Amino acid sequence: MNRNNYVPQIPYGTRDLLPREAKQKRIVEGALAELFSRWGYDEVVTPTFEYMETITLGTGNAIQEHVFKFFDKNNRTLALRPDMTTPIARVAATRFKERPLPLRLFYLTNVFRHEQAQAGRQCEFYQAGIELLGAPGPAADAEIIALAVEAMLEAGLTNFQIGLGQVAFINGLMAESGLTQRDQQKVKYTMVTRDLVGLGEVLAQSDLSQSAREIFQQVPLLHGREDMLRAAYRLVTNEQSRAALDNLADIHKLLTGYGVERYVNFDLGIIRDFDYYTGMVFEVYTPGLGFPLCGGGRYDTMLASFGVPNPATGFALGIERMLLALERQGIDVSVRGKDVYIAWAEGNLAEAIEAAKEYRKTGRRTELALAGCSKTAAEKTANEQGYEELIYIE
Amino acid sequence: MNRNNYVPQIPYGTRDLLPREAKQKRIVEGALAELFSRWGYDEVVTPTFEYMETITLGTGNAIQEHVFKFFDKNNRTLALRPDMTTPIARVAATRFKERPLPLRLFYLTNVFRHEQAQAGRQCEFYQAGIELLGAPGPAADAEIIALAVEAMLEAGLTNFQIGLGQVAFINGLMAESGLTQRDQQKVKYTMVTRDLVGLGEVLAQSDLSQSAREIFQQVPLLHGREDMLRAAYRLVTNEQSRAALDNLADIHKLLTGYGVERYVNFDLGIIRDFDYYTGMVFEVYTPGLGFPLCGGGRYDTMLASFGVPNPATGFALGIERMLLALERQGIDVSVRGKDVYIAWAEGNLAEAIEAAKEYRKTGRRTELALAGCSKTAAEKTANEQGYEELIYIE
Repeated sequence: MNRNNYVPQIPYGTRDLLPREAKQKRIVEGALAELFSRWGYDEVVTPTFEYMETITLGTGNAIQEHVFKFFDKNNRTLALRPDMTTPIARVAATRFKERPLPLRLFYLTNVFRHEQAQAGRQCEFYQAGIELLGAPGPAADAEIIALAVEAMLEAGLTNFQIGLGQVAFINGLMAESGLTQRDQQKVKYTMVTRDLVGLGEVLAQSDLSQSAREIFQQVPLLHGREDMLRAAYRLVTNEQSRAALDNLADIHKLLTGYGVERYVNFDLGIIRDFDYYTGMVFEVYTPGLGFPLCGGGRYDTMLASFGVPNPATGFALGIERMLLALERQGIDVSVRGKDVYIAWAEGNLAEAIEAAKEYRKTGRRTELALAGCSKTAAEKTANEQGYEELIYIE
Repeated sequence: MNRNNYVPQIPYGTRDLLPREAKQKRIVEGALAELFSRWGYDEVVTPTFEYMETITLGTGNAIQEHVFKFFDKNNRTLALRPDMTTPIARVAATRFKERPLPLRLFYLTNVFRHEQAQAGRQCEFYQAGIELLGAPGPAADAEIIALAVEAMLEAGLTNFQIGLGQVAFINGLMAESGLTQRDQQKVKYTMVTRDLVGLGEVLAQSDLSQSAREIFQQVPLLHGREDMLRAAYRLVTNEQSRAALDNLADIHKLLTGYGVERYVNFDLGIIRDFDYYTGMVFEVYTPGLGFPLCGGGRYDTMLASFGVPNPATGFALGIERMLLALERQGIDVSVRGKDVYIAWAEGNLAEAIEAAKEYRKTGRRTELALAGCSKTAAEKTANEQGYEELIYIE
């Protein structure tokens, strides 16, 4: 293309997906939509923005600084949705009140967060996710985790691990410890960010006994297979933490039934970044990616905020992160090239149009030249652009 | 679902797409993506928001009052994209400068406009569209129009008509007439809104001669088949308007080659709502819908604003309008129901999980009960929710 000096910019933290990546996104999203549907989940599409009060009602006030805000004509604050869990809770509360439970819903869409941008972490990004509403208990949680595993496999990823935690385990320890609310928040923050040094500092400055401190410091280290679960039982005596471990054991048994247990490690240090989780939480990791490419868990109190008290569980998967993981692991999402190039000598456009119609009917990707040219020029174009076949009408 | 009195609201001019409609949207969009790909078009995905200056650079200042605006951390104005033509022009200018022309690009995404909301006209809505960049002349325009016809047919619509106009026809008349810029804008506005009374008033208050007035008043009535084209030739003498008619005749000949001429009527009153059009323009109408469900045209000057002077042509199709048209014409977008419901007597969940795995492998939509129940209860659920088959594990 001809160009002069003007270079239009793109907003901070956003990207264009060019044909190859856009096609890979479409392929992966299509496969996930099919998978979710096969498991009985139905898609919902919600507006790109919600009232700010809806967002904070579901996600809590801490999200405020991370959302893109603007105003409607009546000066009410709108926000680009920072996740889909809250909008789906709103939909469930307003539109699905007559439907029998459980509700199985999925989405494939973009969400928005003010963040420091980096590879795999943009201010606008795409998520595939599911929500299972109105179902308590390990059967629902196991379904969610098993479906997350299938989603990875369906997208083409085979080398990944799931860390499985339970926020009630740490909450039980907190309640028992007598830590102030403020210190509890600090402890949680250091765990979300996996900041062990920070955790040690918070604990050292607290009123905790030496033995209680030691227990907290061990939590981030509590990861492994079934033997870790047994070690954790020996560590805690309070009822809430032990019930959390029972819950994990139950879920794990069902995951064995789904045949996905080899992907799962217990990891009691997993807290997740949203405050709304109340039970099982999990994250999916893959080599070469320094952040989870999927995460989720149980959130049994959010729907009550929307007037429909019901248990819920679900997960979200980052599409760009998935594409990045596939690329870094050299896994090819096959993007079909161009099949046929139809070029024509001056005066033969009508005949070329006929030919294009026929080729397209057979499903082949067919591009029609828009100006007449010589056969040599046509061959040059077809070669340079990698068409499988050239049809020259002369 | 249980619920108390709280009812969360949804922002003005936005909608939730519930499972049936979301599924229809996915089916129609998937079919269009396949079609566009078959014609050699590649998808691009751009950010949901752009710098305001990018939007006005492409679309003009008149769009300002119709966009949702907000600010980034540096207080630069961002805008939710009101169309995709401008973002694609930006992508072409910055990311495709090395690629050979023409570029064939498509998109399937949401756009945003502050409007009075009504059926088929929301503040957030979905568009499928294509842009053909770097190709002048009737061959490119005919390809665009033929592809619009195929898009209608692919989505399942058969009863529709295309109105085909040429903005250079009216621009030629304007230039010849000596109307003031202000009056020219007024005349265009009454034509966009199809306000014949308003047009008469603007003309009556102008300095135009009686014969010139009569010509302008006839423009909105200039619609029909080839005979209308001949009548229009007799009406105008200026070169620009006659070249516009020649251009339409050339395009029409090629459309006959594509075999789609029976869908096309000339309509010289079509101006379109965006200022960036410079040549052929068209709109697609279908019975029962009071607004076009697809529209587009040639815009040869926009890319120069982005530093890459090149001709361009394209169209956008409203997905919700398409779904509305299909529904109003009783055309079924087949949405597959749920196939299998697997329920289980207490204690048999593991076996039920096994069964679900097997059914899902065969591609059937399979829902697994998450709590044990009696066979009677399972039959009731399966009947009420319309599953094709019940598997009860006892």
